[in-house]
Formats: sequence, structure tokens, C-alpha cells
Amino acid sequence: MNIDGNPTRTIWPAGDVVEIIDQTRLPHEFVVKRLRSLDDAAEAISVMRVRGAPLIGATAAYGLALAAARDVSDAALCAAGDSLIATRPTAVNLQWAVRRMLARLLPLPAAQRAAAAWAEAALIADEDVVRNQAIGRHGAARIEAIAARKAGPVNLLTHCNAGWLATVDWGTALAPVYAAVAAGVPLHVWVDETRPRNQGASLTAWELAKHGVAHTVIADNAGGHLMQHGQVDLCIVGTDRTAANGDVCNKIGTYLKALAAHDNGVPFYVAAPGPSIDFELASGREIPIEERGAEEVTHIAGLDAQGRLASVRLTPSGSRAANPAFDVTPARLVTGIITERGVCAASREGLAGLYPECG
Amino acid sequence: MNIDGNPTRTIWPAGDVVEIIDQTRLPHEFVVKRLRSLDDAAEAISVMRVRGAPLIGATAAYGLALAAARDVSDAALCAAGDSLIATRPTAVNLQWAVRRMLARLLPLPAAQRAAAAWAEAALIADEDVVRNQAIGRHGAARIEAIAARKAGPVNLLTHCNAGWLATVDWGTALAPVYAAVAAGVPLHVWVDETRPRNQGASLTAWELAKHGVAHTVIADNAGGHLMQHGQVDLCIVGTDRTAANGDVCNKIGTYLKALAAHDNGVPFYVAAPGPSIDFELASGREIPIEERGAEEVTHIAGLDAQGRLASVRLTPSGSRAANPAFDVTPARLVTGIITERGVCAASREGLAGLYPECG
Repeated sequence: MNIDGNPTRTIWPAGDVVEIIDQTRLPHEFVVKRLRSLDDAAEAISVMRVRGAPLIGATAAYGLALAAARDVSDAALCAAGDSLIATRPTAVNLQWAVRRMLARLLPLPAAQRAAAAWAEAALIADEDVVRNQAIGRHGAARIEAIAARKAGPVNLLTHCNAGWLATVDWGTALAPVYAAVAAGVPLHVWVDETRPRNQGASLTAWELAKHGVAHTVIADNAGGHLMQHGQVDLCIVGTDRTAANGDVCNKIGTYLKALAAHDNGVPFYVAAPGPSIDFELASGREIPIEERGAEEVTHIAGLDAQGRLASVRLTPSGSRAANPAFDVTPARLVTGIITERGVCAASREGLAGLYPECG
Repeated sequence: MNIDGNPTRTIWPAGDVVEIIDQTRLPHEFVVKRLRSLDDAAEAISVMRVRGAPLIGATAAYGLALAAARDVSDAALCAAGDSLIATRPTAVNLQWAVRRMLARLLPLPAAQRAAAAWAEAALIADEDVVRNQAIGRHGAARIEAIAARKAGPVNLLTHCNAGWLATVDWGTALAPVYAAVAAGVPLHVWVDETRPRNQGASLTAWELAKHGVAHTVIADNAGGHLMQHGQVDLCIVGTDRTAANGDVCNKIGTYLKALAAHDNGVPFYVAAPGPSIDFELASGREIPIEERGAEEVTHIAGLDAQGRLASVRLTPSGSRAANPAFDVTPARLVTGIITERGVCAASREGLAGLYPECG
């Protein structure tokens, strides 16, 4: 999407290295970071310089290309895949991308593997963009339907960042927003700040501001109140992994917003590209939930009065903190799942209808 | 309650002035601030040096005593009451305390008013302590009942700060915690950090740590996930104003936790001293919700790497923020209301049964 009018992706090859937007520096600094090795790619995923299930998948694919540039042996490629999968446990796209890369590379003669790895990673990135554009079209139709029956802007609420920064381009949950805005639909986005890492306040707000979309940042606590007072027309969130029965794993706190939407009759959509749907998992209960470091709760970074990035401690020194990074929203609370193939019910039947080959 | 073993209240008279713990400096600095005038008291309430419905009421009472020390005329006292009521719109204790003070003072001859104001304010403060101790006893019985049927500590979740820092002493939601701990019940408290002002991370964590109660700070987003996984045995929160039908107005985000508790069969209690129940309000829909400044969302204060208090900006400069400070939890989601007179159903009948004189 656009940064001050310039079309930009979140990851791209540059000669024999890969470049990414370092998302730990946003919204206060725009920094491009160069990934020169498998270890650089794994570190970028682990410390969340890149995050968002689709972008994690693309970065893992490029990580394997960087690995293949040094050693194309079966052992080296499999070890590289294992180390990438170990960086974060919840998003299924990571495993999906690694498996797809290995399935493409391992049957090839050694001499062809390095070039094929770059080509396959680029294909994975390009396919992500195409998928998200399709999600944008399908989701925008739902937004347009609401716009047609109300005066004033459509008020949409989103949690965390499932915008273009979470993907290679366009985003998942925000692809329908960008598509609707492009179609001239008046629209305003409530942006959950999304503690503890504030991906909403720092990333979603930044990308909406850069693209010129009206939005308001709110504390994660505020969404229920806004829904009680008719100030939210629909919710759209992304997903790190959706189970075969439609249970949705996404950023911690998503479940609370889904409960509030259900209690107030507000449609609650999940934008889920095919690779984030785990047809091998019968229900969301089986999804491993990453527990991240307590310091993400006890400390927070921002821009100080002198305009410098600074981290401050929020809690008393004697207090522990816990930090589960994701939760699972039961399918019964989800109005529909927006995929690149269309919108379906959050159910085994709904998903199997769109992805019969995975049933 | 105790600070490092020393019994302390949140507000106390000292000669002809009033002293408070400046809660805007916690948890990083313990600072006692002197209130010398009505304006000082109003400012302390307005910028939240004191907060919590019961403590706001006690501070308003002392504010009228400070006003009466300068001018005991009917006009001056009524104007002082109006200026105190105007500081914050949601907590009903503020109006309750002002009305009670004026009802006590206005019938008196001028010469007796100043001394009577100090006495009445002290009585309001002392009654708050007694009421909260009774809430502690009634609530602790519920905690002890859970402890009797499970192994390991009782896990309680609370939102915002309704501890002793929100009252003159003991607290409302945390009074049962202190009473249960004193009775030897093994107990652990999940502390919602409570964005945007982080009263949980800064005040609840601080007072529990100072009193030696096991606790863990979590992002506001985490509670639903913990309840889904059986890690919360009961919730207790405070209230800024409870309507006659049992609808509960409390810190923004309380409604989301009540929804999650209801969805997971976790008991959800509200600790409500009599003065926070507004029998004149038929339902929670009529409670005015304070909209506070956007900078409470866009900025946050903490301790920097050099150990200095610093405020940092979290959002991009081009992004707006909204900050509703309270929400209303419908009575249907509340398991019971813990008052100084016992525990009742969150309903007109339940509350009228305990407070027949208010019906």
C-alpha cells in the first residue's frame, strides 16, 4: 500500500539479500532492515521485526532462500526449516511456508535449488498479495452493504494489526477497508491499541494514517462500550490460525471483542487467507498458545519528550506479569470467515465448502 | 492497609489541612500531597491524584471542610459543592458526599459550621472504612467457599483499582481479598493493567505487593483466555455507580470481563458500598459516561532506564484517540452485589431487599 503516496511492500528481495520494514521501530521511525542470512530471518520473526501470520510465512520462505544460498544439502535445508518453525508456535502459515518450500526444493538436483528457492519465495509473496486483494473484494461487499442502509460513515472495529504490515501487501482484515475506501465508501476505523505490544496503536494507526483512512485509536477496554452505543457497524479481525471447525486463534483479546459483538448484534468477521486455515486441527482447543516475555507487559516503548525512542516500566518492581499472546474465539461467535474464495460460515461445512480439496 | 508493615490511609486531616497519597506518582514514587484549599481538593479529584468512587466522596467532604474554613456562608458552601460535583461526572459518591455535608452544615448557625464540617468529613471517612470492612467479611465468605472445594490457591481476577487506594481504607473489591488473606485462605490475584490509565498495573499491583498478596499483572486482553482455561475462580470489581436495577457502571472494560465470566461460568461479583448505589436511577443507561482526554490513550508514563518518571507517546502523530472512561455492565451478567449489608442479586428486588429505606 501507499506510504505518503509511494507503493510499498513489507518484504522484498534486493540482490542476494532480503529487505524488510523493521516494524519494531514503527510508528515513530521508518527503518528498512537487511536480512543477510537464515539467522537474520529467524531473528526478525522471533523479535517481531516482521509479524502477522502471512508475513511470517513469506519471511520464512525468504529465510529458506537465504539458507539455500549457503548450503543446499537436504540436511541443511531441513535444519533451516526446523529453526524457522521454532521461532513462533502459533501462526500456521510459518509451517505452511516451510513445508511448501521444502516440498519444492528437496526433489530438485542440488544445482537448481538455490535459484528455485528465490523463485518459490517470490511466488509465495506474490500469491499472498493476490489472495489478500481477493479478500479485499469479498469483504468490501459486506461493508458496502452496510453503507447502503445507513447515513454517515461505516464504523468498523479491528483488533491488533492485520493490515498490509501483517502481510506482503493489502492485509487481511484491512484489505476490505482499503478496497471499500478505493470504491468511495465513507468509512471510519476504531483501532484497538492491542496491548501488550500495541500493534494497533503503532502499526494499524500508522498504516491507516499513511494511506489516508479515517481512524481513532481506543484502549482495548473501550470496544464493548462503543458497541453498546451503536458506534460499531462491524468488526473485522485477522487470524494466526483457524481450525477446521471455524474456531479462530488471533491476538489476545479478540475473544472479548467477539463476545461484545455477539451481545450487541454487531457482525464479527474474520479475514482468513487459505494458508492460515489449519484443516488438520479439529478445533481451536488444540492450537498452541505462545506465552511471550513478561517484559512486554511490564514495559512499553514510545517517543519521549525529546523525540527519542524510550522504554518505560509500568509496574512496581515487586509484581510479576503474564503474557499469553493469543486467544481462541469459538466459531459460534463468528459471523463469517472472509477468504480469498469468498465468505463462508465459521463451521466445518462452511470451510469445507470453500476448500473441498482440504476436507 | 499496610505499606511495608505500616498501617496507612489514603486521606487524613493534618491540623488545618488535609493530606493524601498522590496516586499519580504511584507505583514508582510514594508522595504525600497537602491539600490547603477547596481548589486543591477539586484539582486532586480532577487530575486523579485521588480516584475511586469512595475516596472521591471522602475527598469532596474534606474539600467542603477546607472551603468552610474560609467562608461558611450558604452561598459559599453551595458554590463549593457545585465546583466539587463538576470535577467528575460518573461516580455518584461525589454527589452523595456533597449533599450529606450540605445537609449537615446548612441548618447550623454560622459559628458552628467550620468545626462541624471537619467532624462530618472525618465521620464520612471513618464510615467508609467500617463499610469496607463489612464488604470484606461478606466477600471473603464467597472466596472461602471456593477455597473449600478446590486444591491450590483461589484465583481471583480484578479490573482497575478498587483496593484500599480507591477508598479511605480496605477497598471495596479488594476488601474481601485482604479479609480472606488475613483468614489464611491461599489466594492469587490476576490484575488487569486497566488501560488507559493503568490503575491496575500501577495501583492494584502496588498495594497488593506492599501488603504481600500474591498477584500477576496481565494485559486487559488476557482475562477471557484465562477464564476459558479454568485459571480464574471468581471476578470481583468495584463500581462508580450502580443503578437501582443492578446495572453496574465501572471502569471501561469491566463489561468485557463480565461477558467472558458469563460465557465461562465464572462468578462475577461487584463490591458496591451503599453510597455508590444510585436508587434514583432506574437503569445503567442513564449514567453519564465521562469522556477523558485523548492524551491518556496516546501517551503513557513510566520509569525510564535512568529511573526517572517519563511520559512516552504510543501513537503516530497523525492519529486521533477517544477515551470513554467507564462502561455499564448489565445486571444480567452480575452474579451478585457485595454490599456492607450482605450479598444480593443484581436486581431491583435484590438491592431493595438490603436497602428497604431507599426503595
